[in-house]
Amino acid sequence: MKHNFGAGPCILPQEVFKQAAQAVLDFNDGLSILEISHRTTEFEAVVAEAGKLVKELLNVPSGYSVLFLQGGASLQFAMVPMNLLGDGQTASYLDTGVWATKALKEAKFIGNVNVVASSKDANYTFIPKDFEIPADSAYFHYTSNNTIYGTELFEVPQTNIPVVCDMSSDIMSRVIDVSKFDLIYAGAQKNVGPAGLTIAIVKNEILGKIDRKIPSMLNYQSHIDNDSMYNTPPVFSIYVALLNLRWLKSKGGVAEIEKENKQKAEALYREIDRNPLFKGTCAVEDRSRMNICFVMENPELEKPFLKFAEEQGIVGIKGHRSVGGFRASMYNALPITSVHALIDAMQSFEEKQAKSN
Amino acid sequence: MKHNFGAGPCILPQEVFKQAAQAVLDFNDGLSILEISHRTTEFEAVVAEAGKLVKELLNVPSGYSVLFLQGGASLQFAMVPMNLLGDGQTASYLDTGVWATKALKEAKFIGNVNVVASSKDANYTFIPKDFEIPADSAYFHYTSNNTIYGTELFEVPQTNIPVVCDMSSDIMSRVIDVSKFDLIYAGAQKNVGPAGLTIAIVKNEILGKIDRKIPSMLNYQSHIDNDSMYNTPPVFSIYVALLNLRWLKSKGGVAEIEKENKQKAEALYREIDRNPLFKGTCAVEDRSRMNICFVMENPELEKPFLKFAEEQGIVGIKGHRSVGGFRASMYNALPITSVHALIDAMQSFEEKQAKSN
Repeated sequence: MKHNFGAGPCILPQEVFKQAAQAVLDFNDGLSILEISHRTTEFEAVVAEAGKLVKELLNVPSGYSVLFLQGGASLQFAMVPMNLLGDGQTASYLDTGVWATKALKEAKFIGNVNVVASSKDANYTFIPKDFEIPADSAYFHYTSNNTIYGTELFEVPQTNIPVVCDMSSDIMSRVIDVSKFDLIYAGAQKNVGPAGLTIAIVKNEILGKIDRKIPSMLNYQSHIDNDSMYNTPPVFSIYVALLNLRWLKSKGGVAEIEKENKQKAEALYREIDRNPLFKGTCAVEDRSRMNICFVMENPELEKPFLKFAEEQGIVGIKGHRSVGGFRASMYNALPITSVHALIDAMQSFEEKQAKSN
Repeated sequence: MKHNFGAGPCILPQEVFKQAAQAVLDFNDGLSILEISHRTTEFEAVVAEAGKLVKELLNVPSGYSVLFLQGGASLQFAMVPMNLLGDGQTASYLDTGVWATKALKEAKFIGNVNVVASSKDANYTFIPKDFEIPADSAYFHYTSNNTIYGTELFEVPQTNIPVVCDMSSDIMSRVIDVSKFDLIYAGAQKNVGPAGLTIAIVKNEILGKIDRKIPSMLNYQSHIDNDSMYNTPPVFSIYVALLNLRWLKSKGGVAEIEKENKQKAEALYREIDRNPLFKGTCAVEDRSRMNICFVMENPELEKPFLKFAEEQGIVGIKGHRSVGGFRASMYNALPITSVHALIDAMQSFEEKQAKSN
């Protein structure tokens, strides 16, 4: 048994792996989930149930469509401005890290971009506050959780213009008020399902307001009109997402998992703050519950600790190269026992160090 | 045991299903293929081997890149003109069916389109010949196999301009001379792997010749520069494609599978032509080896025959609504025993009819 703290594609529930493997062998009447048509009644039921569960789990109000797409958040970086940013208009972006920067860079291929604030000079260790969102922007875009830096934005910034949010790494991890957003998108490969699937939650009325000719696959309306079956969807990834959403519902839904996620994060941050060998890298008030970044007071101990942790079955905690140190990603499916295993490793390593000094 | 004649997503080898299911449970060191990072050494090896096998199996010359993308052929319909059709230029398209029509419709969002020929008036029952491809077109686009109508174009049309081909439903089914093409693309879900993956084989030198600003995910060059890892790729679909490509190689490669595909197609066409109850729907010289369309002389017998075939474990032979009757899709992984089962059903049904008359 490994403790998988990988940043994504990431751990999913063990029962989901078992059910998914079974469906690869026999999904329905002896046929594999990999060899069935997406136009079968059985698969249409999968897509319908997955969409219904997303709406139920996130309490999506009427007037929104839930879409299952491909291409990851990176393709959304282009689709958002293609669909929402008219000729001559400007979109406002909050720059909180590499992914936010990529999103606004892609928007620049389509139109004008205004960066409302950036914490780049501080290596994105905090979320900028007190910025102004121009009321005449086509929309405001932000990234709710910054996987690389371990910061998270829990409050939706106040504005009267449409709000677009990349929730790739914290969707389904906490209760959100969908009515405050006009477009939410997320690569599935954290809390929704495996890689190869993108989820989008679109307020229908924001579409169709600009003149651009948009190729069908890049037009949200085509996917809405065809219930995410404009063309062959990523069948297996949607099925695994369904299994994962069912699991989340059986756990009590998003409010319940949020409690667990809080407990997990609080336990690890407590140890980081207590243990004299370690320190967090982010502003305390902006700490993410999904990706917990920390370094060691003595950088020379980082390699030995990484090795020590690996010996306890802890994998995926090496930090991203732009931050260094460690990153413990603690998505929904990571059990609290894995968090305890990491905390135990930190404490044992502290004791070991004390003895060797 | 079902005989799966579905048009796609379609049958893959049984051993691929077994290996894929095993990887969902334990791909490497106890971790599922669904929970590993695409940046692991193990997965980078998967992508590298899959790319190498595509090159080997299709004998891809140097100067071409093999890409693993998302969005299906439908997204390629837009990416091709975005990358190759400059302002004021015209692209030439051959219209051989619904998918060819969709491809040229998407190109019209980007630039000018010239249709060199169409068999639409004959419900696409043949492939137009003797058309002219203007030498000043930016490129010539065609669909090598028309899944819905059961026609296939075996010879590459003669032209000096770049040739772009949608090979979604016959790639890897027969030997091709890649040097005659500048861009080949294919949704994977027939002979390459499961849904959720697109393969593209791009001649590097055709890129970068037009001025358009292309969003990164829609620019072939981004994917070439990043070895298909510009962003998180569809991990599981690529892995299953690798398993399938390994299987194809173990079978003796494309030349060997082409022999089998010929035998399978010849056997079924022979029965269609012999059996007085059935008749083919396409021009004989344009008959596809992948998708075999046929109807019954007496349409009232079609429902009873469909039911009779299903009783023998034959699934997926109902024809597309635009052709009616039956369509037997006979991709690489369909064993010849399944073809014999279908032929047996046709003969038994003939005998049954003879007795009841």
